[in-house]
Parts: sequence; C-alpha cells; structure tokens
Amino acid sequence: MSSTPRVETITIGDELLLGIRENAHLTYLGSQLAHHGLEPAANLVIRDDPEDIRLFFAESWRRSDLVITTGGLGPTTDDITRESIAKALEEELIFDPAIEAALKERFGQLEKPMPEINLRQCYRPSSAEVLKNPYGTAPGLLLKKDGKILAMLPGPSREMHPMFEEVIVPRLQKEGIFPEIDCYLQIRTAGIGESALAEKIEHLLDGKEALVVGYCAHAGMVDVRLSSLDGDVLTEQGLHDLADACREAIGEDFVCFGERTLAEVIFRDLRSLNKTLAVAESCTGGLLSSSFTEIAGISKVFHGGAVCYHNDAKVQMLDVPESMLEQHGAVSEEVAIAMATGACECYGADYGLSVTGFAGPTGGTQVLPVGSIFLGYSSPVGVWAKKIQLRGDRASNRRRAATSALDWMRRKLRKYKLEEVFAASETVDFNV
Amino acid sequence: MSSTPRVETITIGDELLLGIRENAHLTYLGSQLAHHGLEPAANLVIRDDPEDIRLFFAESWRRSDLVITTGGLGPTTDDITRESIAKALEEELIFDPAIEAALKERFGQLEKPMPEINLRQCYRPSSAEVLKNPYGTAPGLLLKKDGKILAMLPGPSREMHPMFEEVIVPRLQKEGIFPEIDCYLQIRTAGIGESALAEKIEHLLDGKEALVVGYCAHAGMVDVRLSSLDGDVLTEQGLHDLADACREAIGEDFVCFGERTLAEVIFRDLRSLNKTLAVAESCTGGLLSSSFTEIAGISKVFHGGAVCYHNDAKVQMLDVPESMLEQHGAVSEEVAIAMATGACECYGADYGLSVTGFAGPTGGTQVLPVGSIFLGYSSPVGVWAKKIQLRGDRASNRRRAATSALDWMRRKLRKYKLEEVFAASETVDFNV
Repeated sequence: MSSTPRVETITIGDELLLGIRENAHLTYLGSQLAHHGLEPAANLVIRDDPEDIRLFFAESWRRSDLVITTGGLGPTTDDITRESIAKALEEELIFDPAIEAALKERFGQLEKPMPEINLRQCYRPSSAEVLKNPYGTAPGLLLKKDGKILAMLPGPSREMHPMFEEVIVPRLQKEGIFPEIDCYLQIRTAGIGESALAEKIEHLLDGKEALVVGYCAHAGMVDVRLSSLDGDVLTEQGLHDLADACREAIGEDFVCFGERTLAEVIFRDLRSLNKTLAVAESCTGGLLSSSFTEIAGISKVFHGGAVCYHNDAKVQMLDVPESMLEQHGAVSEEVAIAMATGACECYGADYGLSVTGFAGPTGGTQVLPVGSIFLGYSSPVGVWAKKIQLRGDRASNRRRAATSALDWMRRKLRKYKLEEVFAASETVDFNV
Repeated sequence: MSSTPRVETITIGDELLLGIRENAHLTYLGSQLAHHGLEPAANLVIRDDPEDIRLFFAESWRRSDLVITTGGLGPTTDDITRESIAKALEEELIFDPAIEAALKERFGQLEKPMPEINLRQCYRPSSAEVLKNPYGTAPGLLLKKDGKILAMLPGPSREMHPMFEEVIVPRLQKEGIFPEIDCYLQIRTAGIGESALAEKIEHLLDGKEALVVGYCAHAGMVDVRLSSLDGDVLTEQGLHDLADACREAIGEDFVCFGERTLAEVIFRDLRSLNKTLAVAESCTGGLLSSSFTEIAGISKVFHGGAVCYHNDAKVQMLDVPESMLEQHGAVSEEVAIAMATGACECYGADYGLSVTGFAGPTGGTQVLPVGSIFLGYSSPVGVWAKKIQLRGDRASNRRRAATSALDWMRRKLRKYKLEEVFAASETVDFNV
C-alpha cells in the first residue's frame, strides 16, 4: 500500500454512550495503531441499533482502507453486529459448525452445558474468516473485500486485546497496512506544562522536514510524540538524534522515552541499586501502593504499603508519635516524614514514600484548605518533606497527589544517584 | 417535540484518536444526556481536519435533531471547527464585535493585552448565537436551523461543563428537547454473567411495549438498563414495577438500582450498622483500599488497609503467625483469615477483608497456579475464607480479585444482616 491507509474504528455498545464507562477501546486501539505508525481518522461510538450499525459501518467502509469494530458479538439479543454488518456488505450470514465446535469445547472445559442462546454466535458473514477467542465465547471475524479489510473484535478488553496483538497485528503487517518498523518516538515528561515544554524544545523541531510533533497532557505529565512521515527524509536515526537533543533541553523534567509510568521508572532505579521500598498513604488511600503493585516483578523491590486513614492507625501501624500528631496535626511536614520513616522501619525497607493531606470535598483548615498535601521521603542519603497545593475535586486531587509523590521521588533518586550508588555498595568501579 | 429527538455528539481533537487521553467528553455528555432522558445515538471522535469536520458534521446534522460539538474553538491554527461547520451549513463567518469586547474584557481582568491571534475567535456563523464563557477565551455557539439545534462547546472540561449545565441544559428544556422527568432505570448486578442474567429476567421483559433493554458487562458486574421510549405507554411507575420484579428474580446477585460501586454499597451497610472496616491486601496491592477511599466521607467507616507483599510484612504489620506462613504458605485459607482478623485488630476495626493470591505472570505452584486467590473475611458474627480461580492477565486478575472480595463481603453482610443488627445494638425495636 503506497499512501497512508485510512483507518476508522467503530465501538458498538449503548453503555459507552450513556457515559457509564470510559471508552477504553479508543484509548487502546488509538495507541496500538499509533505504535504501528497509523492514526485512526475517526472513532465512532454507536448504539446496539441495527439500522445505525448498518448505516455508520457502510459510510466508514466506503471511506476507509481498514475498519475495526468492537462489541456486539455476544450471545444476547442486543448483540447484532454480525447481522447488521452482513446486511451492509450484502452478504448472507451462514452457520459455521467450526464455531459451534469451539464453543462446545469451551463450555466443556468449564464443565457447563452450552446454553441454546450461544448458538447465535455460530453465524458469520459468508466471506468472513473466524478468529479464535481463547478468552471468551465471542469469536472475532476478519474479512477482506474490495481491497479493504474489516476486523470485527469482541467487546471485553481481556478478549479483544490478545486477539488484536496476537492475530490482527501480524496479519496487518503481512497485508502491508502496518509498516515493519516503528516510525515514531515518544518523550515522556512530568512537572512541566504543555506550553513551557513547547518553548523548551521548539527551536530543535521547527522547520524539520517530514516531522510531525504532537503534544499530549495527562494527569500531571506531558508526552511529546515525534513521528517521521517519510523514512527517507527523516530516518529512524535522525529521529533518535532529535529526541536526544530534546532530552538534553528538557533537563530533569524528562522522565523516559516511551510509555513507562513514574512507578516503573522508580522501580528500575531501585532495582539497579538493589534497594527496597515501602509507602504510607492517607488521602491517596492505596493509589501509591497500587501504582507499584501493578508492575510485574515488583516484589523484588516493593515490600508493601500502609493506608492509614485514622490517626490511631498512623500511630499503631507506622509508629508516628502521638504527641507529634497532636502538636502538628496529621497533615503536616513532620507527620509526612514520620510516615515515610515509619514505613521504612515497619516494612524493613530502604526507601519510604508518604502522602498525607486533605483530598476534599470536606476536611481542611483555614491555613491548610482542601487540596493541601504533604509528601514525605526517606532514603539512605536523607529525609525530606514537601508541600503541594492542588485545586481539583477529590478524585483529581488523589490522582495528582500520587503522581506528584512519584515524580518527586523520581527526581530525588536521580539527583542523589551517585551518593546512593555509594550507599548501595562500598566499592564502585569507575572504570566500567 | 413528539418523538425522542436524535442526538449526536462530535468530539474534535487529534489527541483523543492517538489513544493518549480518555474521551472524558463522551463520559460526561453521555451521562448528562442520560440524566435528562436522552441517549446519544452516536459519538464521533474526529481529527482537526477541515474536510473531515465538514463531512462528519454534515452527515450528523442531516440525521439528527440535536448535534453537540466539543473542541476546536481556540485561537490557534488547528482550531478550525467554526470555519468547517460554517462551510457545511453554507453560512458566512461574520465578525462579532460583542465577542471581541468580551475577550478584551477577559484579558483586561488578567491585566494582559489581547494577542492578535485571539481575533480569530471573534468570528461566528451568521445565524449563531454567542454563549459566554466565564472560564476561558473560547465562546460557545448555539444555532437553530431547520428545526434542529447545534451547540458548539469549547474543549477544556472546566469550560465545557459549566457551559453545558448552566446554559445548554435550561435552553434544551425550554426547547422541549430535554423532558422534565428521568425515564430510565439501571439495575446493577454482580457475580452473574450476561447470558445467565438475561435468562433470569427475559420472561419479565419480553414483548413489553415501548421498553428498551440494554446490558452492559464491566469487570465482574453486569448492568441492565430499562428505558421507556414512550411515557404514556410505559410510565415511570410501570418501569419501577418492572425493575422491582427483576430485582426479585435476580435474587442475591442484585447489587443496587443506579450506579453505586460495590464499595459504596458496603460503606452504606456498615454506616447504617455504625461499624468500621480495615483491609489487608497482597496481590491486589492497594486496589481494595483505594476503592473504599475514593468515596467521600469514608473516614467514618474505613480505618485503613495494609498492603503486605512480603511475608515479613504480613508478620510485622498484621500479626500473621510465622509458623502459619511456613505451614500453609502465604496463599492459603488460613493466612487469608489471619490477614483479615489481623487487619481488624491492628487497625481497631469491626470488620476485616483480605486478599492473598498469585496475580501473575509469575508465581504460583502446581496446586495453586497463577490466578489462585484466597479471600478472608472477619466480622462480629463469624470468620470465613473463600478460594477463587481467575484466568486473566495480571491487571485483570488484580481487578477481578478486588471485585470478588467486595462482592463477597456485600453478600455476607446482607445474609447476616439481622444477626449483625443484634451485634450492633442490644435492643432492636421490631415495631419500627
């Protein structure tokens, strides 16, 4: 395929339109496609309505080279993607005994009889190829027609993601729709706004041929994406050189190339130091712990975390002195530090990170209104506290407080890296 | 307006299509519209491309009674919503001195001169009415034409939300597009699959005139939404009666009417008993704690939680006996219970809930493979453990384990309600 193929994705399901659930499919498919050098031209979220599915799909199909649909392949009566799309393509739905056999096998493994209702899932448009679904009952369907490709994927993420990565990606590479090489690079930053970041790096990027620059702000971080539109004009190496120059210009706000979370960056730093971590949280209530524990292999580094909402819990679980709580209050520099050192001692860890504050909507004082948060940090080379002031609602304050704590620890770790290497080992070979 | 108006929303902005940011506009507008008895027929996420905006808008406008666009009203060159939509409507863009005056006033308040570039924001399609934006520079635009309504709203949430709630909602009520009453109802269930749930309630719903039924599965829960298409045929009372009959048929898998989370349901039960809770987590690593701490006012009930990854932490923080860990292993019924009772004792709480297991991708044994999870529960009327076997990846196993623990506690609380009322108070007045 010579020019960039046009891709549209169609997400089918009433629940997304009612605002109950975030459209995680768009986030997932958008970033998957971006990894393969494509940007979807549109994402259509539509209802489980046969006429709407037929209409939107037909328009999408007319415009696009690749259409990916998700949802509506289940067994219930509101799962009508198969029927509606077959109609739009003027194809018959045929019964496929192979799907039935796979379904029966699946129910057999679960030691359940297959409900009558699941027979609906055994039909497919006549020219469609069946994609096995090891994680659920709904098979995926792939269809090539008029030089275009249609992929129909199941709605649940744990079924759709593996099918996309294991089946669709290699298939689209084979069809020449996904290029073989990555042709973009992402720079992740934290603690700097979009415009300030742009000012820092614009002089490096302005006027570069075949370069596309995209900024994206999310929860206290900004990503910059550099893509080459033409690998002959701006090569992969050229893109890497540009990114290195940007890294230099960005300084300590630079987090990583790619998509690592702040917790992953800290995890790698601590693992390389062979050191361990524990956390203590009040207002973030588990978010700090869970951003570490979502990392596979974290048990090498992370000992645990204490969520202490009540003052009694801070005393009992983290050995925060009662007199300190009385004198300074639970939301204070002193208590933040005591929580961090307490986490280290109680969990037997080298590093401790803590958050205490007023997330809202109630709580807070005249001096420390809702959004006042103290961070505490305990390390082999020193102990620090820091105050931040947030202005969002409860959910946003909790998220931001966790992000700020992680970013702060990341900076401290980088700043004191040499000293901590000494603390980690008495003999450092500088000739390596 | 006699029949249900068709609403489509169009979200304009490249960043959403790249999958970097969630489409919070869809979640927001979807739930706002649902609260006013409408379901958007579609949400189109499209690029900042003049041809695409013109094309998608024109199709949307042809099909719909109400179109809401967000984004692309800023001052920079990629803000082209005004121009593209004026073109689709075959209207001229005219300079509006009132917008200029408002902008100059805004910049005056910020004690800055208005940049030349902001003059672009002073143009509007000739028949459009200007909606003031107290929180930013981009004015909203409202347009009535051919019996249809178009609302063009700014992209940033803190500008768009107040404009929608303070200006658009009353206006659409006045125009008769938003009815005065809510006409849908949601039933939330847990621990039952979509097909099994459908089989339980289908006989109550089949053939009912003016009724629309939608199912939505998310993370171990299934919601059923009942909507009335015509309040004369299926009244609000009729809808409530249907929902009550469904509740009866669903039995203990029924969680609530509406959108409460499992943690909120437990929170309300415990608050009504005047009892407190602590949790202990291994593989869920903070997810249990954070599902409680996201609730405003939870401190009345929730004392805290201990995330204990290492065995040492389980001993040190939760008083789990070392001999028990050696004999039964950390992933066992015995340790799950010891963690739950330990959480109660260490945090001084009445109820304890615990999770310990192998979330994957590594860990696990021949007898207890990845996905083996034990739940522990300690309450004033007894202590229980339960084993579950999950089959997903790490992220999904963590989420599912947390959901299962919450759902299990919810069921136990309901089952033993009477006894726990006794435990909560020595004198119960049955005449109330």
